[in-house]
Amino acid sequence: MNRLELYINDMKSGVCNPHAEPIILKETAATAWVDGCDGLGATVGNFSMALAIKKAKECGVGWVAVKRCNHYGMAGYWALKAEKEGLIGMSFTNSSPILVPTRAKQGTLGTNPISMAAPATGGDSIVVDLATTTAAMGKVEMQIRKGEPLPEGWALGPDCEPTTDAQLAFDAGKLLPLGGLEKTNGYKGYCLSAMVEVLCSGLSGSRATHNVPQWSHSQTEPPNLGQCFVALNPECFAPGFGDRIADCLQHWRNLEPVDPSLPVLAPGDKERNNAKVTHARGTIKYPESQMTSAKRLADRIGIRPLEAI
Amino acid sequence: MNRLELYINDMKSGVCNPHAEPIILKETAATAWVDGCDGLGATVGNFSMALAIKKAKECGVGWVAVKRCNHYGMAGYWALKAEKEGLIGMSFTNSSPILVPTRAKQGTLGTNPISMAAPATGGDSIVVDLATTTAAMGKVEMQIRKGEPLPEGWALGPDCEPTTDAQLAFDAGKLLPLGGLEKTNGYKGYCLSAMVEVLCSGLSGSRATHNVPQWSHSQTEPPNLGQCFVALNPECFAPGFGDRIADCLQHWRNLEPVDPSLPVLAPGDKERNNAKVTHARGTIKYPESQMTSAKRLADRIGIRPLEAI
Repeated sequence: MNRLELYINDMKSGVCNPHAEPIILKETAATAWVDGCDGLGATVGNFSMALAIKKAKECGVGWVAVKRCNHYGMAGYWALKAEKEGLIGMSFTNSSPILVPTRAKQGTLGTNPISMAAPATGGDSIVVDLATTTAAMGKVEMQIRKGEPLPEGWALGPDCEPTTDAQLAFDAGKLLPLGGLEKTNGYKGYCLSAMVEVLCSGLSGSRATHNVPQWSHSQTEPPNLGQCFVALNPECFAPGFGDRIADCLQHWRNLEPVDPSLPVLAPGDKERNNAKVTHARGTIKYPESQMTSAKRLADRIGIRPLEAI
Repeated sequence: MNRLELYINDMKSGVCNPHAEPIILKETAATAWVDGCDGLGATVGNFSMALAIKKAKECGVGWVAVKRCNHYGMAGYWALKAEKEGLIGMSFTNSSPILVPTRAKQGTLGTNPISMAAPATGGDSIVVDLATTTAAMGKVEMQIRKGEPLPEGWALGPDCEPTTDAQLAFDAGKLLPLGGLEKTNGYKGYCLSAMVEVLCSGLSGSRATHNVPQWSHSQTEPPNLGQCFVALNPECFAPGFGDRIADCLQHWRNLEPVDPSLPVLAPGDKERNNAKVTHARGTIKYPESQMTSAKRLADRIGIRPLEAI
């Protein structure tokens, strides 16, 4: 919902072609190079992860790299597609330049997320989906709204010095890599973002992040992002994979917490718990500003606006 | 050299079998499940990465998961084996419990490193090799020797509260995940360590890190670590991979630095520069304590000790 207006703008301006179908350019039993043809992120993601899943079922691994992609939403969503088939799923995307490499002044890599989902016995799973910056820009915006400063290590200000001023950080658009500054080993987040770049633009021949234009409401050319979808069949390895993942989940969740009111979570638990609460309630809560922008969008394109219950 | 005494102890006590040869237990064109048979880390690493490379050359990807492993040295060394063959190499290992998951009191995951090496045109490369803790225990020891405090976010003390006292941190053995505390998004490092666990113990059926005994000088049973070796052939994807990686390296190295005396490095540059200096000098420098312990070891097993030049 948060991105809907951007998606629609991209279709209206022609930088995204909603009718495009991806094309396989090169293929082996385990790999494929795909042209996303500037299609919708959802179209390209569905096509590419389905292809990776098919290959993983046939020969153990499916590795698909795609060029000419648009924004594909949540990386973990694609990893979960494979998890639902009993496979390990992974997905990566590059993005527009916002991560400032250690020692540098300018954003040049993306939030370049890493995601993995792995199935456990009993319908449980490990789900990882993380930006390789310390925090995503959305979290900086949230600190502005709450009127709270940023923790140190999130961002640089316009002067390229570390800042805890959320508004300054938002205006500057210079996010620090996971780990923060060099003294807290932020170069590791920079390296992880570079790894994602290798798997996305490196393999697919899309634009490298440093050549991707900032995503805006007045895009003039297709972003040509690179994306990577991997599926891996645990049945090709030691029997009992699901039980081992379930054992890890149980072990981590049962660890004694420092603060008894804050239990230790397994990767994916926070989102899983939120999903359960939402399902139980039967409705999705949106902030007021989301409803206002959806209304404005509906008016602009001539459809019935969302209604609050 | 730093680990030599531990390796020799493990062979003497029989927890590592220096004559063991790894066995392939299950295989597809792209995957293999291997039993390391408690052999030397170097033996098992050589066998498994060679197998991954062979498969990557045949069908684009080689994905090898191995149980019953010992310590295999530097993760990046194995990734570089594939890089030297024009492939992308990745390697992962679990280890003994030392990483404290976010909110928990006890170390339960390992430093569980992530490594990747990717070849660039002109003999250059991107090399990533990072522990999923903020810092490795070796760096804590270095702060003790220098008499300097730790940066915040490296470790908890024996009371499970964050500490900057290097000696307390060393005694407690509770390293924080990459990112540090929860407020600086340290759960991301926890998630990355969990991902490595999935690829190592999850796939291979080795011990999970929470069941691995601490590595000591008086080991009584094989650690049964899990390791994972991946090779990927860029030729199965878009032509020009090496040129794109070279372009990224050049772009990152040429970024304007905040401090002109500290140039921006590409992933792997620090180690590459150190290697160049060492090659030019023609000798390797060891700390005095390393020479002393090598001498003691040589005396104990009855061989001629290392001599300083």
